[in-house]
Formats: sequence, structure tokens, C-alpha cells
Amino acid sequence: MLFLISILLTFLTQADDIREIHNVLDLQASAWNRGDIVGYMEGYWKSDSLIFTSGGVVNRGWQETFEKYSAKYDTKEKMGTLNFSNIEVTLLSSRSAWVLGKWELVRTSDRPHGVFTLVLRKFTDGWKIVHDHTSAEN
Amino acid sequence: MLFLISILLTFLTQADDIREIHNVLDLQASAWNRGDIVGYMEGYWKSDSLIFTSGGVVNRGWQETFEKYSAKYDTKEKMGTLNFSNIEVTLLSSRSAWVLGKWELVRTSDRPHGVFTLVLRKFTDGWKIVHDHTSAEN
Repeated sequence: MLFLISILLTFLTQADDIREIHNVLDLQASAWNRGDIVGYMEGYWKSDSLIFTSGGVVNRGWQETFEKYSAKYDTKEKMGTLNFSNIEVTLLSSRSAWVLGKWELVRTSDRPHGVFTLVLRKFTDGWKIVHDHTSAEN
Repeated sequence: MLFLISILLTFLTQADDIREIHNVLDLQASAWNRGDIVGYMEGYWKSDSLIFTSGGVVNRGWQETFEKYSAKYDTKEKMGTLNFSNIEVTLLSSRSAWVLGKWELVRTSDRPHGVFTLVLRKFTDGWKIVHDHTSAEN
């Protein structure tokens, strides 16, 4: 009986973790789509050890990543509307997970899109992205 | 005293894990550079759940990934010489890790290069790549 309760609790905790990770991404997309890059950056680990890579370039640290985003997307037109889809969360341990998903920016002039891989860790203040590898479809 | 021994053992185990993960990548590069794609594929989890993504395309399963590689790199010239560099291994738990690295293919006609993110899990037969996100520098 205790064994069954233990399995049930593990299952419920994992379902919570998966839901919380989806929430991190939902909040990021919402923040982006109201032009709030600081809110978008809430999903990332606020540490010098955050690693963000896109287009072969590696950015290190929350501050550098934030500055790169702020410079690249300095108008509402450039930010466009961000859509995440096909989000797949895989838990690696009780405190780590990875995510595969698709991204698309809907803008007046173009519609860049591609795939992203995230590594997340669970901190005392919740799940945060510690690594983001975003690439565009060729 | 027991506490110090415990810390020391954890440290030694982590050093072993990091070394084993570097070995997985070294063996992949060696296999590739002798034209052995099957040997190269030894580094990947032999499962339908392996996920490989590159250039915005997602391949699912060891077999599909193997077939994609075999079709794309069907001559020694196309395979060229594969170099991995700047490998950074981060352990997430005793049985999971992620890796950031740079790749370069040295070929007669070109020298494509970029960044890769790997997620690895430790199985009874050692560390295997369960997810690979490879992108080329724009």
C-alpha cells in the first residue's frame, strides 16, 4: 500500500513539474508579445552561468543574453508575435529537465521559425532555463 | 570523517562521469574520421526515443538518425574530418548531463561549423546521447 502511495506521489510530482515548465514558457511568450523583454527574461536563470546559443554564437550570462535580446529586438515590429508549439518536456531527475519545441516569430515582413532545446533546473524559486539552444530552419 | 569521505567519493564519481562523457565524444570523432558511421552512432541511445535536430528538422529514433547520416554523408569526401572543440560537460544528476561544444567539418570544398547541445543519460552500458541539437554558424 505504501509502495502504491509512493508511486502515486511521484507521478503527481512529475505532472506538477511538467505543468510548471509549460508555465515558464507560456509566461515567456506572453511577456514577449506585450513587448516586455525583462518579463521574458524571467524564465532564464539569473546567473553568469546561463548559456544561450543561436546562429553559432554563444552568449554567457543572464546580463549578456538580456543585452543581446534588447539590442536585436529594439522595436515592437522586430519583436513581432512569438509562438511556441510542439513543446515536449522530458524530466531527467527531480530537479532537471530538457525541452524540445518549435518557435515562430510572426512579423509584417517575415516569419522566421525553427527549433529550440532548453535545459532547465529546479531552484527554490521554481524551474529556470539554464541553457537555450535556438536555431532557425535553413 | 565519514562526511569527508562521502564528499571525496562524490567528487571522484563526478570526475569519472565527466571523463566518460568526453570519451563518448572522442570515440564518435575517431569513428567519423575513419568513415565509420555505425561506430559514430554508438554514442547515441539506440532507441526510438532518440531525438536529433539540425537545420530546423527533427529526426526521431536511432534508425532514422542513422539513415539520415548515411544518406547525407555517403562518401569520404562529404564526411571530411570532424573536429569537436570547446567541450563543456555539466552534470545534472548522477545519471544525466548536458554538453555544449563546437563542431567543424574540414572538407576539400568547404568548412561548415557551428555549435551543438547534447543531453546524455547514464545507462547500464554507459553514457549515451539521448538528444542532439546541432546548428551551423550563419
